[in-house]
Amino acid sequence: MGLLESISGPQDLRDLDERQLVDLAAEIRDELVRTCAPRGGHLGPNLGVVELTLALHRVFDSPRDRIVFDTGHQAYVHKMLTGRAGQFDSLRTEGGISGYPSRAESEHDLVENSHASTSLSYADGLAKAYAIRGEDRHVVAVIGDGALTGGMAWEALNNIAVGDDRRLVMVVNDNGRSYMPTVGGLAKHLTTLRTNPRYEQVLDQVKRRLNGVRGVGPAVYDALHAMKKGMKDALAPQGLFEDLGLKYVGPIDGHDRVAVEQALAQAKRFGGPVIVHVITQKGFGYDPAERHEADQFHQIGPFDVETGVGSPKGRIWTDFFSDEIVAIGEERKDVVAITAAMLYPVGLDRFAARFPERTFDVGIAEQHAVTSAAGLAMGGLHPVVAIYATFMNRAFDQVLMDVALHECGVTFVTDRAGVTGDDGASHNGMWDMSVFQVVPGLRLAAPRDGARVRELLREAVAVEDAPTMVRLPKGAPPAEDIPAVDRAGSCDVLVRRGGRDVLIVAPGAMAATAVEVGRRLTDQGIGVTVVDPRWVKPIDPALVPLAAAHRLVVSIEDNGRVGGFGANLLALLNDEGVRTPFRLHGIPQEFLPHAKREAILERIGLTPQTLARRIVEDVTALDSGRSLVDIPID
Amino acid sequence: MGLLESISGPQDLRDLDERQLVDLAAEIRDELVRTCAPRGGHLGPNLGVVELTLALHRVFDSPRDRIVFDTGHQAYVHKMLTGRAGQFDSLRTEGGISGYPSRAESEHDLVENSHASTSLSYADGLAKAYAIRGEDRHVVAVIGDGALTGGMAWEALNNIAVGDDRRLVMVVNDNGRSYMPTVGGLAKHLTTLRTNPRYEQVLDQVKRRLNGVRGVGPAVYDALHAMKKGMKDALAPQGLFEDLGLKYVGPIDGHDRVAVEQALAQAKRFGGPVIVHVITQKGFGYDPAERHEADQFHQIGPFDVETGVGSPKGRIWTDFFSDEIVAIGEERKDVVAITAAMLYPVGLDRFAARFPERTFDVGIAEQHAVTSAAGLAMGGLHPVVAIYATFMNRAFDQVLMDVALHECGVTFVTDRAGVTGDDGASHNGMWDMSVFQVVPGLRLAAPRDGARVRELLREAVAVEDAPTMVRLPKGAPPAEDIPAVDRAGSCDVLVRRGGRDVLIVAPGAMAATAVEVGRRLTDQGIGVTVVDPRWVKPIDPALVPLAAAHRLVVSIEDNGRVGGFGANLLALLNDEGVRTPFRLHGIPQEFLPHAKREAILERIGLTPQTLARRIVEDVTALDSGRSLVDIPID
Repeated sequence: MGLLESISGPQDLRDLDERQLVDLAAEIRDELVRTCAPRGGHLGPNLGVVELTLALHRVFDSPRDRIVFDTGHQAYVHKMLTGRAGQFDSLRTEGGISGYPSRAESEHDLVENSHASTSLSYADGLAKAYAIRGEDRHVVAVIGDGALTGGMAWEALNNIAVGDDRRLVMVVNDNGRSYMPTVGGLAKHLTTLRTNPRYEQVLDQVKRRLNGVRGVGPAVYDALHAMKKGMKDALAPQGLFEDLGLKYVGPIDGHDRVAVEQALAQAKRFGGPVIVHVITQKGFGYDPAERHEADQFHQIGPFDVETGVGSPKGRIWTDFFSDEIVAIGEERKDVVAITAAMLYPVGLDRFAARFPERTFDVGIAEQHAVTSAAGLAMGGLHPVVAIYATFMNRAFDQVLMDVALHECGVTFVTDRAGVTGDDGASHNGMWDMSVFQVVPGLRLAAPRDGARVRELLREAVAVEDAPTMVRLPKGAPPAEDIPAVDRAGSCDVLVRRGGRDVLIVAPGAMAATAVEVGRRLTDQGIGVTVVDPRWVKPIDPALVPLAAAHRLVVSIEDNGRVGGFGANLLALLNDEGVRTPFRLHGIPQEFLPHAKREAILERIGLTPQTLARRIVEDVTALDSGRSLVDIPID
Repeated sequence: MGLLESISGPQDLRDLDERQLVDLAAEIRDELVRTCAPRGGHLGPNLGVVELTLALHRVFDSPRDRIVFDTGHQAYVHKMLTGRAGQFDSLRTEGGISGYPSRAESEHDLVENSHASTSLSYADGLAKAYAIRGEDRHVVAVIGDGALTGGMAWEALNNIAVGDDRRLVMVVNDNGRSYMPTVGGLAKHLTTLRTNPRYEQVLDQVKRRLNGVRGVGPAVYDALHAMKKGMKDALAPQGLFEDLGLKYVGPIDGHDRVAVEQALAQAKRFGGPVIVHVITQKGFGYDPAERHEADQFHQIGPFDVETGVGSPKGRIWTDFFSDEIVAIGEERKDVVAITAAMLYPVGLDRFAARFPERTFDVGIAEQHAVTSAAGLAMGGLHPVVAIYATFMNRAFDQVLMDVALHECGVTFVTDRAGVTGDDGASHNGMWDMSVFQVVPGLRLAAPRDGARVRELLREAVAVEDAPTMVRLPKGAPPAEDIPAVDRAGSCDVLVRRGGRDVLIVAPGAMAATAVEVGRRLTDQGIGVTVVDPRWVKPIDPALVPLAAAHRLVVSIEDNGRVGGFGANLLALLNDEGVRTPFRLHGIPQEFLPHAKREAILERIGLTPQTLARRIVEDVTALDSGRSLVDIPID
């Protein structure tokens, strides 16, 4: 029996000796690799925080002390150490362990969100609350150097710096990268701190002195640290954290668990806000991850444990964008690309390789990505900003005020839109078709297949006086493109068969679903027209007479039901006096627990089977003179 | 004839001698005070940048060089110097000079937006574009120390720091405050830079040497500066700007125009990104402003030039919140308040005076305001976050992911919601009822009068497992509270008269309008029911049978027509099979040019007269069996 099985909670860690802790770390790494191999996951980040997480749970007393992980995908080890090792092989399966912290799973999980740079703000609030309530609890935020490039982190640091009475430890987990190597002045500065030779010398000394020694008293470590600190003040550049007035401890070798524990214990005793700067290596301890150049297995699909080689992937939506933007870049010298620290996942890697001088990785900084794009447009270029749909919400105000108000030609490519599934509630891109509907002038396209990705991207970058948005779902587009049988305005008519009973309007990935629904309806003798609007905003007025000419209008979208495409189509038809019965299908307006995309679509009824059944019920109701209200929507 | 009248553009400034420039500065200040006295405006900030703006336009060559003002309300002097002195007395009047930069007014205005902390991102984009296009143009961003507390500024600095080849000058206009004294570690750090005695000594020396000297060669200044720089390296704390790798010049006395010009000229020659740290005083040169403790006339209403005393104001919506939150604070020790650098404008000043330990000013940092509130709620408190509606968009993702996903009891009070008018497109709070509709669990209340502010605020802070939002319009609530004649679900029925022809549903400030519309309709023999839903989200199902029982449903909201209250009511009625004709009145989904709130409401048809006329037309159409479509919506 392994050690890991014997760990029912953090308290069990405190009785282990050094030998056991080393063995446990190795066991955890094996378990991480073993569990991720068949299903994928955020392997690299978790391999990098094994010692750090052990140290955190030995020094602090969770859940009394609160540990907040920034971008919670680095919480696998935390989960194993807080009573969930036994279920860990259900990771990221429906009903199993979530890939992010989950309050439903454990009292040790507090913050579930996986949008970056938030942990310091949560921690500031928690520490303020405990100070006001007079509770003697510590708050620990674990934040990567990449997440520090996000503006929220700065806002938080600025506030934390003046809260002398708060028990707040900020662990900067510095591995030099988020998804991509961390960019900008901050990254350079951290490197300066990290590579200062005097530091390293002292670090070695600390290591030598403490190596293998069990239970080294805090006093010894403090003395060593004080020496280092003294040297630092004299010889090293002052760090920006200290410029802000924050206590700083580090840098510490994050794979030297003893050193990390000593630093954390020192920070804990301090009683005010402290930065603990820990240097870790993504993928540490698993050769294929360490050697992986692009992202050290930041997030991987299934792979072979021995070789680290993944199974070949089919072409996903992103690949069609990736191809076409390179082609556009060849033709138009004014097209530039922006990514927020996700060059590969959003498919800009090939553009960057071909046009490095026209590619900008701005860090995890969606707001800056958008407003600097406005500046680029004002300067005569056409920026293409590729960001996950769920992260675009971070820059809603910048799209509205900085791009749209200023009528800038900026193209946004929102990847992983709609239901994404595996990563849980915070990763579903189910908001964009609603919130960006309100932005005056903005045009939003939803391609239904690979050919439409290319076509709509080209239409988008041709717009020079307004923002455009091209929405790409997760996964693969239809294996074969879906041809149009006719055009109505700028909409494609995909099916027109058997009379004018039902008009189905279905943008993006739902177009393929609608075509299949149409097949099922005509099989049952119901006449159907299926339309892909291509541009969901502005809504094409050509839909008005089409709607008027049918007995039932059905909209289907992989976006929240509230305020999305269907809701706006309904409002348009209402304004225009079209009173055809209308049925709106979309994602229920709630946070969806993690599961495979297909399983979620099944659960919420956005499959051809369910949709066809419901439409048949609606048509039957209309046939018998009943109102649609007799058929409940959900 | 004054000098100011002779300035047709920046080129005219370059021929003036020192005496004339001093006279011009005085003239500009007189004009600022004279123009703002009868109508109000952002007087304090503009009094503080007279010399700075003169220097900018003498050193840089606008519009070839681009000057971007962060929070453009500090651009009055810029406007006077770029050909608009003659029309300056039309400031902030309909059709007159805007209170913010305006591309329609001048080629010298590029960025109109007035949401803070954006200028460095615009400038980064512009400088990148000019570098790529090989254009030899400088970009200057003028940003206050307050705006530097916003996260976007950090994201931009991080990126700018690595752009060696870009001609980008960042002027930090450091007056120690935005609306309020600047908070946090950054403010402390700037103070350190500012008050370093060696600096001051050198500054004095520079001043003495250059005082009154015309055309001092750059070399002399450089030599002095180099000396200062050397001392700084040895004696002063390294600044965080330099930690990031940014060149830093300063601090400079911002009211010593010659010194500012020398520093700007030096920065211009450098050819890469440079920070120029300029110390100014808000309200400089006008006694009543300098002496004004709360905000140095940051933004004022009409006032007397001699005394600086404004006319007494009536009670505005904010005052009712301000009263009630103090009362709630007395009763509930767990209620804490958060402002983003706007304690007075959002009405938290009295709460802060009474409960300083429970009040947090987080700086211009809406994202941190929201997520730290989530942390406070997780820590057992109930935060009330008061922010202007237009600025809430900055933290949409944080409300969604950090507060709502985590089911935190946080109350948002969104002030200046709806049409605000004077400050132009970027200040209208016309988005909130749409974008926050999508947030699962969030409840949104719109009080119709002072009594409802108190009532709904109390209902909001009683919710402990979800975010709530209470929306306050600009200006004054009805002089007398509007009583309910009945209740339907949680809605107030305000009017029920003469049969069931028209149901008007009108939240917030539009309730009073609807009551007046109702009066006009009954005068014409049309039966009317007026309902204030009180909570616009979730929509009360009690509205469904009410709608079904009338011949026409009319919704009226001071929010964009797209995706707002009316759109969601329409979708609900559609889901429920209620097919009563529906007319949706709201703000057209476009950016509205500045004018008085009343003038805008008139223009967009949200007045009792226009609404009553349209409803009569609709009813007449229904009476004659016609469809509503024959009556165009706009």
